[in-house]
Amino acid sequence: MIEKLEMIEISGIDDSNSPRVVVIGGGFGGVELVKTLADAPVQVVLLDKHNYHTFQPLLYQIATAALDSASIIHPFRKIFGEQKNFYFRLTEVLSVDSQKQEIITKIGSLRYDYLVIATGAETNYFGDEVMAKNAIAIKSIDDALELRNTILCNLENALQAKDERQLNTLMDFVIVGGGPTGVELAGALSELRKHVFPKDYKELNIKQMDINLVQSGDILLKGMSAGASKKAIEYLQSYGVKVWLNTRVKSYDGITATLDSGEELKTYTLIWSAGVIGAPINGLNPDVILKGNRIAVDEYNRVKGYENIFAIGDVAAIESEEYPQGHPMVAQPALQQGKLLGQNIQRKLKNKPLKAFRYKDQGSMATIGRNHAVADLKLFGKDYDTQGFFAWLIWMFIHLISIISFKSRLIVFLQWMFSYFSYDKGVRLILGRKKDHGKFS
Amino acid sequence: MIEKLEMIEISGIDDSNSPRVVVIGGGFGGVELVKTLADAPVQVVLLDKHNYHTFQPLLYQIATAALDSASIIHPFRKIFGEQKNFYFRLTEVLSVDSQKQEIITKIGSLRYDYLVIATGAETNYFGDEVMAKNAIAIKSIDDALELRNTILCNLENALQAKDERQLNTLMDFVIVGGGPTGVELAGALSELRKHVFPKDYKELNIKQMDINLVQSGDILLKGMSAGASKKAIEYLQSYGVKVWLNTRVKSYDGITATLDSGEELKTYTLIWSAGVIGAPINGLNPDVILKGNRIAVDEYNRVKGYENIFAIGDVAAIESEEYPQGHPMVAQPALQQGKLLGQNIQRKLKNKPLKAFRYKDQGSMATIGRNHAVADLKLFGKDYDTQGFFAWLIWMFIHLISIISFKSRLIVFLQWMFSYFSYDKGVRLILGRKKDHGKFS
Repeated sequence: MIEKLEMIEISGIDDSNSPRVVVIGGGFGGVELVKTLADAPVQVVLLDKHNYHTFQPLLYQIATAALDSASIIHPFRKIFGEQKNFYFRLTEVLSVDSQKQEIITKIGSLRYDYLVIATGAETNYFGDEVMAKNAIAIKSIDDALELRNTILCNLENALQAKDERQLNTLMDFVIVGGGPTGVELAGALSELRKHVFPKDYKELNIKQMDINLVQSGDILLKGMSAGASKKAIEYLQSYGVKVWLNTRVKSYDGITATLDSGEELKTYTLIWSAGVIGAPINGLNPDVILKGNRIAVDEYNRVKGYENIFAIGDVAAIESEEYPQGHPMVAQPALQQGKLLGQNIQRKLKNKPLKAFRYKDQGSMATIGRNHAVADLKLFGKDYDTQGFFAWLIWMFIHLISIISFKSRLIVFLQWMFSYFSYDKGVRLILGRKKDHGKFS
Repeated sequence: MIEKLEMIEISGIDDSNSPRVVVIGGGFGGVELVKTLADAPVQVVLLDKHNYHTFQPLLYQIATAALDSASIIHPFRKIFGEQKNFYFRLTEVLSVDSQKQEIITKIGSLRYDYLVIATGAETNYFGDEVMAKNAIAIKSIDDALELRNTILCNLENALQAKDERQLNTLMDFVIVGGGPTGVELAGALSELRKHVFPKDYKELNIKQMDINLVQSGDILLKGMSAGASKKAIEYLQSYGVKVWLNTRVKSYDGITATLDSGEELKTYTLIWSAGVIGAPINGLNPDVILKGNRIAVDEYNRVKGYENIFAIGDVAAIESEEYPQGHPMVAQPALQQGKLLGQNIQRKLKNKPLKAFRYKDQGSMATIGRNHAVADLKLFGKDYDTQGFFAWLIWMFIHLISIISFKSRLIVFLQWMFSYFSYDKGVRLILGRKKDHGKFS
């Protein structure tokens, strides 16, 4: 149940004659939608609990000290500063009241004509609360910074470890989940182990550091081509990452990760990237919430049973023959749905027929350490899979042009070039909160 | 009294035959000293409670969203990664035991042959604990980020203010102290007010925002030339900053700043830059702690009464005729003392006579908003004072070349160029802790 708030209205937003589109969440889908509505005769109100958009695919580079956080997060008010019909409120949405056509937020209520739920996904611990408490996720900039701080603090503490066992617990890593995040993180950590930590911590024997990647299935990068999956393992093993296939982490108490085989891995740093679930808002008809907490929408991204409530991106599932459980929870479907919905809202205002969503899969890719990536590309309707240096160049190019501002693109590019030629990752700063298991101050 | 710890020794540092120089604090003085000892036959152990060096003169640009934090802080292990005789421990020093020649830290004790105290200064609230609790300082990167978050959150909250009075409390600023930090901060805030906030918060009447600069003396930038002081006021007033001379803030409860005239200024954001005091360590003979908590040292930076304990930078005071209370607490004396002490330690090892410290004042400067700065320069023994655009160019040049790494220099330069040509400050991120007075969630 939602706590009843003093029902003040969110103030400062003109009650103009234009219809009001309220967008909850400024991820890829939400931002694309707001952009598409730039010149539409509507009022666009974006609500988010942060004042910035996060470029999630590069979070692992924040965690591994390759990039500074400001390069991949961008204030909404800066992105949309010139957009006349744009309003932003920093708040958390508590629920929707579809009868009254309003949403209830922590700072007050707000009437909508069209509501777009673009709240994305959150880490799925499959109900394991102990895991949720002890593991580190990597879904937000706060997560990524916490992971960076934890890795660095553990190494500082390792200098003062009282025995071998404590030393290994401080120096070893367990990454759960062999999807792109887990694979990219394992690659980046092995880069640090090879090129950075031996110089930084010459008193430690960095070779003792184990990087474990635990995957429940029998391949990495499920959903990508067989070539990509195979090469991903090859690359990681060549870097000395220990890849555990067909293995699950049964429990983790902050020190010991117990595998389903019974084997135990000691670590203060277990990174959980084994799954996400949708993060819908309260107040919708429970029937529309599917397995995995995604909201059932039709091919116009309209929430089933509602006329003027939409959902896009990770939180939405268009069930189709090709994608029976909805589209993959990655950036591309969100971007494409955001854009189409922006156009459809404008069509609706002109009483034109709406266009149905068709996902244009442009392929997927993952970078694995220095010089290596795997990429499955779709070009002119054909599939190409490529691995190695060329894939790595494509990966860099695609990610660079996807970053929001020219300034950030340039600064990320510079940071990458410096890292590349110096074999260094410069942002090794312990700044802010870290995971503290109480063993060290 | 110091709590008695389990007296474990800090481990991992070879007990080599070379004398061990322990340096407490990696500010300008400490870093310069470590660098100067790079090729000396000594073991250098740097201790700091952060794992990074902070370029303090640019903290106000972090607070005002002009620079990202990673550009002005640099990990010690990166700075000294190639220096063979360098060791670092992340810890806080609790006290020195000069009899046993060891220091006691939070992670254990450590023997020294030479001890260098370079612990710098901390904010001086002159014993006003209520002020210390409610005001925001600007001495560390944490402070600067807290100030940035607070400013931005207050504006977000202002959109939802329930009356005029609350609105003004959220939008107005009081800066206490008319030294370089206060003046530069007032200038930077007025830049934001003029060029950035009106676009970001079009629902607010940004003209309502008051920036108050309260100075106890009758001039700003005391210690600089008359021309600089005069122009500083002129520039600030032309930007609409309200400058209060000969005025003190008597008290501040988190909402109301009461001036000694009885007048009251309402603000949730009072920035305290009205003074600093030395931050010495415990365990020294109390007689050597002077007024302002600085440690009395001789002209070789040797703490009075000790043979092998030194102090440099803000925490040290060499009393001389020209500087009866010690040198100014700024970067230059710290850098020069760090360098000379590094050379003197090497002279001592060779039984050569030591050189006495003579401060080479190279002048001082402050930037005040866009295109304007004031600079007092010493060139070939002569004084020049200049104000305006040329001084601003010099200010930028000097600060750029002083930043530690080439990469950071380039990135800071780019951020400045982008800001200059776009009239924008890009790092408007609310990320991490903020001052919360409990009025808003």
